[in-house]
Amino acid sequence: MTVIYDRVALIGLGLIASSMAHAMRQYGLVGEIVGHAKSAETRKIALDIGLCDRVCDTAALAVQGADLVVLCVPVGVMGDLAAEIAPHLAPGATLTDVGSVKGAVVEAVAPHMPSGVQFIPGHPIAGTEHSGPRSGFATLFQNRWWLLTPLDGADVAATARLRALCEGMGAHVDEMDVAHHDLVLAVTSHTPHLIAYTMVGVAEHMRRVSNSEVIKYSAGGFRDLTRIAASDPVMWRDVFLTNKDAVLDILGRFTEELFVLQRAIRMGDGEQLHAYFTRTRAIRRGIIEAGQDTAAPDFGRATVGGGEGKT
Amino acid sequence: MTVIYDRVALIGLGLIASSMAHAMRQYGLVGEIVGHAKSAETRKIALDIGLCDRVCDTAALAVQGADLVVLCVPVGVMGDLAAEIAPHLAPGATLTDVGSVKGAVVEAVAPHMPSGVQFIPGHPIAGTEHSGPRSGFATLFQNRWWLLTPLDGADVAATARLRALCEGMGAHVDEMDVAHHDLVLAVTSHTPHLIAYTMVGVAEHMRRVSNSEVIKYSAGGFRDLTRIAASDPVMWRDVFLTNKDAVLDILGRFTEELFVLQRAIRMGDGEQLHAYFTRTRAIRRGIIEAGQDTAAPDFGRATVGGGEGKT
Repeated sequence: MTVIYDRVALIGLGLIASSMAHAMRQYGLVGEIVGHAKSAETRKIALDIGLCDRVCDTAALAVQGADLVVLCVPVGVMGDLAAEIAPHLAPGATLTDVGSVKGAVVEAVAPHMPSGVQFIPGHPIAGTEHSGPRSGFATLFQNRWWLLTPLDGADVAATARLRALCEGMGAHVDEMDVAHHDLVLAVTSHTPHLIAYTMVGVAEHMRRVSNSEVIKYSAGGFRDLTRIAASDPVMWRDVFLTNKDAVLDILGRFTEELFVLQRAIRMGDGEQLHAYFTRTRAIRRGIIEAGQDTAAPDFGRATVGGGEGKT
Repeated sequence: MTVIYDRVALIGLGLIASSMAHAMRQYGLVGEIVGHAKSAETRKIALDIGLCDRVCDTAALAVQGADLVVLCVPVGVMGDLAAEIAPHLAPGATLTDVGSVKGAVVEAVAPHMPSGVQFIPGHPIAGTEHSGPRSGFATLFQNRWWLLTPLDGADVAATARLRALCEGMGAHVDEMDVAHHDLVLAVTSHTPHLIAYTMVGVAEHMRRVSNSEVIKYSAGGFRDLTRIAASDPVMWRDVFLTNKDAVLDILGRFTEELFVLQRAIRMGDGEQLHAYFTRTRAIRRGIIEAGQDTAAPDFGRATVGGGEGKT
């Protein structure tokens, strides 16, 4: 691999940034990796584990001289961060972000961008339920999609260079319009997280079913929802606050659809239930064929270390 | 291990029965395994792969002389099956089932039981999204819970013997009341499945987001729901039709709770969202500590065969 950027500044050192650091280093994609996190504890961990070549106490220091700056912070603080670093960005630098919402990030960040800096919003569709500087690993982006949503008049060469970095980390890259991104993600990520959080909350509130029962008998399906409902609370709060319209749109459809099935249950309409449950199998097959999930039973849990749940 | 039953008849040869066959044989728990499935194709596969010692063309033939009969068929056909086999059950035999709903099974099966036959309803909280006679494996029940719901006046020795079989296959056994079982399972299994089916259905119906986009970008959370939404449609139709009251109860609570979060999104109440998302993390930790799921990121998908999604 050839070096794509001489110096990359990662602002925010959580799961995505730490995975990028591991991947960029392992695949030799960049010269120097500079990092900054708001929390002194996170900066100390990053130093201790050698995540970056340098860790700076401020974002302004970290971005100086970087030819790529990556904002890896919750969507709600992107605007303030952009205002803070804007005067320190190198002419000709590219700035991208990894936020799960693009419309709100563009609105918050773009006005601060000096001329001569290329702002190319991005979003890797990858993650785990873990967070923090220790949670990253080099293969997180392997075979995952990294969406770029370049704005009108974006520099073609700068976009191609950023794409090369993402591909170098093992990702596939697609470009799409900002609003379409936010709708697609409301369907494939934001609403699924909200209903998972809700179902876990319902289980927790039941007085007639104890939490220990919920936990013991979770292998019946519930435990699958608890994984995404264990994701970072700040990140997800910001996602819902900033992608409000698309999420409310999909939630409305979800509730409509749920009521149709609820009515079928109440009326004892077995045919309707059976037809519905048969159609949804095809989507799972598509996901496996597209290499976006494993075909192994139970996500392969059963084969990890022998008996499932034992690892 | 000592032999617990001399002859076990498995009626229905899907995921649970085939896993029982593998486990009982591997751990030397029974003398002879006799099987029957309604479909000639399933019987042929069972013969071809040597799943049972004998495969019978009728359920009546299969149960003759068995000291344990296990009904492994969808909940909706348990009653007719019980009526069919009742005259052929051996005196002193135990009959159990593995249905995900207990109230409806008891109502359908108990009236047909001859005196001298012990009917002890059961339910292993274990499974995968796969079905059919080839989908079973011996470790399915390892470290999982197997619930028994003995009826009033159940024979203590017969219950202990059935418990020993379940434990011999690696399961933990709990006994509980029929109605409580159905409520607990509505929370930990039935409602989670219904909302997963619903979310997958919503994604499939969206015209502005194509199915190929839903599939490509599913790693943002959606793919987790598609696994349980790929479960056997007949089994799940019957679960919802026969555990109607408990499922409608939990669905009502779910919708209530979802509306609270939906309103918080609409009103921009970040504090409420953050507090909710923080509480739900604790349940996930409890499930991992109880050995009911893996702590590995992404269910260990990331570590199965290298890059996630590649296996």
